[in-house]
Amino acid sequence: MALICDYADTREDFAPGALHTLAATPATVHWGYFDATLAPALRVRSGDLIQAEAITHHAGDAPDLMMDAAVRRIFSEIPEADRNPGVHIMTGPIYVEGAKPGDILEVRYLSMRPRCLYGSNLAANWGYLYKEFNERERVTIYRLDAGANTASALYAYDFPGKYLVPGTITHCPECDREAALAGVRVKARPHLGTAGVAPDAVGRVSTIPPGLHGGNIDNWRIGAGATMYYPVAVDGGLFSIGDPHVSQGDGEISGTAIEASLDVLFQIVLRKDFSFPSPLLETPKNWIVHGFHEDLNQAMRNASLDMLTLLTEHRALSRNDAYSLMSVAADFGVTQVVDGRQGVHVRMPRDIFPAGSRAPG
Amino acid sequence: MALICDYADTREDFAPGALHTLAATPATVHWGYFDATLAPALRVRSGDLIQAEAITHHAGDAPDLMMDAAVRRIFSEIPEADRNPGVHIMTGPIYVEGAKPGDILEVRYLSMRPRCLYGSNLAANWGYLYKEFNERERVTIYRLDAGANTASALYAYDFPGKYLVPGTITHCPECDREAALAGVRVKARPHLGTAGVAPDAVGRVSTIPPGLHGGNIDNWRIGAGATMYYPVAVDGGLFSIGDPHVSQGDGEISGTAIEASLDVLFQIVLRKDFSFPSPLLETPKNWIVHGFHEDLNQAMRNASLDMLTLLTEHRALSRNDAYSLMSVAADFGVTQVVDGRQGVHVRMPRDIFPAGSRAPG
Repeated sequence: MALICDYADTREDFAPGALHTLAATPATVHWGYFDATLAPALRVRSGDLIQAEAITHHAGDAPDLMMDAAVRRIFSEIPEADRNPGVHIMTGPIYVEGAKPGDILEVRYLSMRPRCLYGSNLAANWGYLYKEFNERERVTIYRLDAGANTASALYAYDFPGKYLVPGTITHCPECDREAALAGVRVKARPHLGTAGVAPDAVGRVSTIPPGLHGGNIDNWRIGAGATMYYPVAVDGGLFSIGDPHVSQGDGEISGTAIEASLDVLFQIVLRKDFSFPSPLLETPKNWIVHGFHEDLNQAMRNASLDMLTLLTEHRALSRNDAYSLMSVAADFGVTQVVDGRQGVHVRMPRDIFPAGSRAPG
Repeated sequence: MALICDYADTREDFAPGALHTLAATPATVHWGYFDATLAPALRVRSGDLIQAEAITHHAGDAPDLMMDAAVRRIFSEIPEADRNPGVHIMTGPIYVEGAKPGDILEVRYLSMRPRCLYGSNLAANWGYLYKEFNERERVTIYRLDAGANTASALYAYDFPGKYLVPGTITHCPECDREAALAGVRVKARPHLGTAGVAPDAVGRVSTIPPGLHGGNIDNWRIGAGATMYYPVAVDGGLFSIGDPHVSQGDGEISGTAIEASLDVLFQIVLRKDFSFPSPLLETPKNWIVHGFHEDLNQAMRNASLDMLTLLTEHRALSRNDAYSLMSVAADFGVTQVVDGRQGVHVRMPRDIFPAGSRAPG
């Protein structure tokens, strides 16, 4: 097995071959699921660039600010009954020529640009402190300052009833808009909350639980400049993107981020030279390994064991060396806490290894 | 209750009044415990500077490299039977004139300088992956490159038997020294693993579990430039420092960091204008709140609830605003995982608040 990170001299082979555009329309999105039988929305070759639209399923929280004609068409033409078993609007799938089960799709995220200047944070019924907030849901609308790369709250309102239907359109002119977070400016961290390949399963697979295929990992580091490695499970990979965020913290404790549609430019490179047991992320600073489980303790253990695998199988460290290095240099973070679904990630700095063995950025 | 961070105009009152030195000797350290009845090793006034020595209890892992005469004296004169119920060598206690229960000691860490150029990482019997490593313990000795602010492994050896006695001196010339982590350079992050005030309790309190008093928090951000707020429980506070580290990752999964003695310069400021329910840390970038529990899930919940307290009671945010802000901007990390003792922290960036309300550095 080749080292993940020793392919610097072959990277030039992956210079972009073509640029494709993939608009989000009722015909090119699937709402709430991955499905191995979906017809591709696009076919590409390894190395191709894709400029694609990722639409937030929370655009209805401030329809006047977050929905344009194309977004409205998706919300109006895809019936509520067809938005399941998950909640995210996924653009794709993209078929990668030659991709076979066992391969890896290396997806290099190059640019993530907000489609409009507004996003929504919902304190949701699946949020971590829902009970502590007396089981009330609340929407806070944020406005982006693209020049400053920040977001600030525009207004907030109590969500009427319970947010259960993905893509609910709230008629907020009828809501009681309140001021929120005066003077506070949050750093923007545009990223994809959900992306991945089609699992090898019969029927729809929910977009909600993250897993080997990717899915709802919700790590804000999956932004421009980052590379994700997704293991192919079915012919062509069938890669889709969705759940765009302008910012979230590790933990995403209210149940959502600042949810906002993004235009995403990425390159897909087909890799046949390695495998890895969980979603692997490479940022300019770190290698990041993810663990998931319904129990945070076990998610933590899974992340630690997979980082051990990364260091021993892909960095050629002994197990003893890897364990010591993890203890003194790797940072564990809580990516997500939702009842029944916890995520832990671990970040290992790339620059601690000898220069010759570093991956290019 | 005053806001924690609105004291900029009074900070000048805290200009240093005096500089004290506190060497670590058998008479000025206590090994393994806090104790409210200990005679002070030093008495200071609010605003005073203290230059103190913090000695690692792991100096015996490489006695030829990590022990000088003063360290040897501590190890030889404090009997093993007097090192309990915890494991850390604590320098102090320091009595702060006028400190009363309910006050806060604001400890500004100004400088942390390695005493020697070597440190030890133990893959310990209390480490997170002890079973996965067949219940074998191993020492990796690191050498510091002070100029580059990095550490690299010098050699490693299997620990003979089981590491049970704090301050065990291993006669490693008799061990099988093996090369380790060739070419790897870890960033140095000098910090104190353990520090705090004496709890209001009868008898010895172990240094191991972190709590409201401080203790073994093991957050690598408690380094130079950081400020910790410790709530006073007994007259004078009785503050002590120990468990010096040159680096560790969030999680500290082998059970130890790069353990290495440090010379520490800090200023103690007595605060009578606020309180907080858990150890609060201020770094140049973040406010950081800690949660502890034997179950990582509950440690996470405790950290989230105390950050809610910080934002509502000390930043004057509404509960709704605080919850949204935490979801979109606060990062949760796993500080420590040890059987029966888990730590989670949450970092809230300081620069997201209006400039006028920011604390000075």
